Amino acid sequence: MKITTKKERFLNPLYLESGRIIEPYEITYETYGEMNEEKSNIIVVTHALTGSFHVAGRYADEPKAGWWDKLIGPNKAIDTNKYFVICSSVIGSCTGSTGPISPMYPSHEPYRFKFPVVTIKDMVKAQRILFDKLGINKVKAIIGGSMGGMQALQFAVSFPNFAQIVIPMACTWATKDWAIAFNKVAMESIIRDSNFKGGYYDIEEYKKSDAHGFAVGRMAGFISYLSPYSMDKKFSRGYVNNDGLYELFGKYQIERYLDYNGYNFPKWFDPLSYLYLMKAINIFDVSRGYDSLSEAIKEIKAKVYLISFDKDFLFFADEMRELHECFKSINKECFYENIKSDYGHDAFLVEVEKFDNLIVDILEGKV
Amino acid sequence: MKITTKKERFLNPLYLESGRIIEPYEITYETYGEMNEEKSNIIVVTHALTGSFHVAGRYADEPKAGWWDKLIGPNKAIDTNKYFVICSSVIGSCTGSTGPISPMYPSHEPYRFKFPVVTIKDMVKAQRILFDKLGINKVKAIIGGSMGGMQALQFAVSFPNFAQIVIPMACTWATKDWAIAFNKVAMESIIRDSNFKGGYYDIEEYKKSDAHGFAVGRMAGFISYLSPYSMDKKFSRGYVNNDGLYELFGKYQIERYLDYNGYNFPKWFDPLSYLYLMKAINIFDVSRGYDSLSEAIKEIKAKVYLISFDKDFLFFADEMRELHECFKSINKECFYENIKSDYGHDAFLVEVEKFDNLIVDILEGKV
Repeated sequence: MKITTKKERFLNPLYLESGRIIEPYEITYETYGEMNEEKSNIIVVTHALTGSFHVAGRYADEPKAGWWDKLIGPNKAIDTNKYFVICSSVIGSCTGSTGPISPMYPSHEPYRFKFPVVTIKDMVKAQRILFDKLGINKVKAIIGGSMGGMQALQFAVSFPNFAQIVIPMACTWATKDWAIAFNKVAMESIIRDSNFKGGYYDIEEYKKSDAHGFAVGRMAGFISYLSPYSMDKKFSRGYVNNDGLYELFGKYQIERYLDYNGYNFPKWFDPLSYLYLMKAINIFDVSRGYDSLSEAIKEIKAKVYLISFDKDFLFFADEMRELHECFKSINKECFYENIKSDYGHDAFLVEVEKFDNLIVDILEGKV
Repeated sequence: MKITTKKERFLNPLYLESGRIIEPYEITYETYGEMNEEKSNIIVVTHALTGSFHVAGRYADEPKAGWWDKLIGPNKAIDTNKYFVICSSVIGSCTGSTGPISPMYPSHEPYRFKFPVVTIKDMVKAQRILFDKLGINKVKAIIGGSMGGMQALQFAVSFPNFAQIVIPMACTWATKDWAIAFNKVAMESIIRDSNFKGGYYDIEEYKKSDAHGFAVGRMAGFISYLSPYSMDKKFSRGYVNNDGLYELFGKYQIERYLDYNGYNFPKWFDPLSYLYLMKAINIFDVSRGYDSLSEAIKEIKAKVYLISFDKDFLFFADEMRELHECFKSINKECFYENIKSDYGHDAFLVEVEKFDNLIVDILEGKV
């Protein structure tokens, strides 16, 4: 599979929903496979909170493949022998596109809290500008899960003529208080950590600290990405060792899982980006600027395929059902499937085998 | 209503499940109404994580009544004109019974982390010893929710001849990883807070700090006590003010709710007690020491009435159903009702009107 990673720099300002601007800005993107002459085989992938442009394949020195490698590649559901796949890092992230740790113009100091709040709509707009620069004005499909699903849905509303097919997965149409509450715990935990020092002006020092506030905040996130069912299956109240029962800080396997993944997270992700992306998720509402959700949906020209996971404890299947009902209420075609999975929210990343055939059928026009 | 608050001191050691002992120890308890001559009208109430002996009524100088005042009082479901109600603070708590901030013998220094891990079984044993001292060897009923429900269930197993009726509400028979995960976030957040200083040896200083780690940990707890449904009803993505949308730390009402209640919590509850009580909840398993849950249940002689709440996102109704199924599998009588309520786990405290008639019927032998 041909993997190409590129960075584009834009000198014109990016006008944000808030009225603020970012200029200049950069977007890093990766492509897989070959674009055909008619440009009819392009599939856009949009990434989640901690995702990046690197969605598939494995670099020479890399221990782990891209985050959706199970779904995308030669002879996989999104077959890169057939399709040209493109994914870019969102504005606000710390993975190659302009975000809060990028240098500000002209001082070259990192933005930190001077970075403007960006929205899902802003992320989508920046991608649309990137595609324009690449000569892409129409794509076969856009697919993404979680924050990526929000982007897919927003794409369909903001740019009705851009995609034929849109597949928002494991997401909502407007973030509910339940998800905002989890983000609140993470945000509060990050900013109150004494190591963070109001924006960690010494990045190296912060990275050397254990960044416990960030780690604890991420643990709250992990709870919402799993489910009571997947935890039961995975951990079953297991102890790491039998000595733990009467020790105050005994180590249940679930506790070790949260420790390991929580404290590992600050090593590879930036807390400022995390704050900004959580904020973007919190304020996501695809109906903002419209009188109602149905008014927003009326804009859509793409065929929309909604996919939820029945044990998603972050963005509940009921929220996707609400959106589906809204399509039906205005007699607008919309396919909806609720995938059976115990895994929880992260099923869209982890249990690809539960829905990859469905993706094939959607792309081949069989559903 | 006659309210009496008393403290009993025990000089004999309390032998704990862990093999450790506490000596001496004190238990504070409160009673409501009058015990009849036959001692046939006694109802024991067991409290939850942050509860205390003060379950009903209002002291002269008190702004808020006891934590289950909606349920207990003259002419209420648990009618104190008829019943003699007694509730004691658990061992390990910070509300009048011996816990980690109590003075150790003989140094009179607070125990802090020298306090032994206590279990739900230990809490129940200490209560049984208290009742013995008060000349109470049989009661009409035991009722409690959440950690109180665990105690009620444990009472039925540990002391089969003690209660005629046992009503465990909003709890589980063995704490699952989902609940342990929420407690992990809270425990980690408390102990890593730089104000906590490995056990806050200067209590006054800690109380003066904002104790943000404790506050954030409590916020995670609040998520689990509510539900996505109650949050929707209560907050509906509302902003405290309209300026918040494009501010990074914009104040959604749910965020303000968590802030207010989170930062208020350290003012009235002790973090060490919180750690020990979470640990007791984590290791609760009523079948511990038995070959199986059904072996444990076989001990029970009381009539058991299980009550769950269908939108409880901490101890799911499914867990109560599991317990009920186990009773059925050994042909043991057990009543189970799943109360419809959007509120979530805290419904047992907040939506008393949803189940108070059921409690009346249970106590009057009508179900």
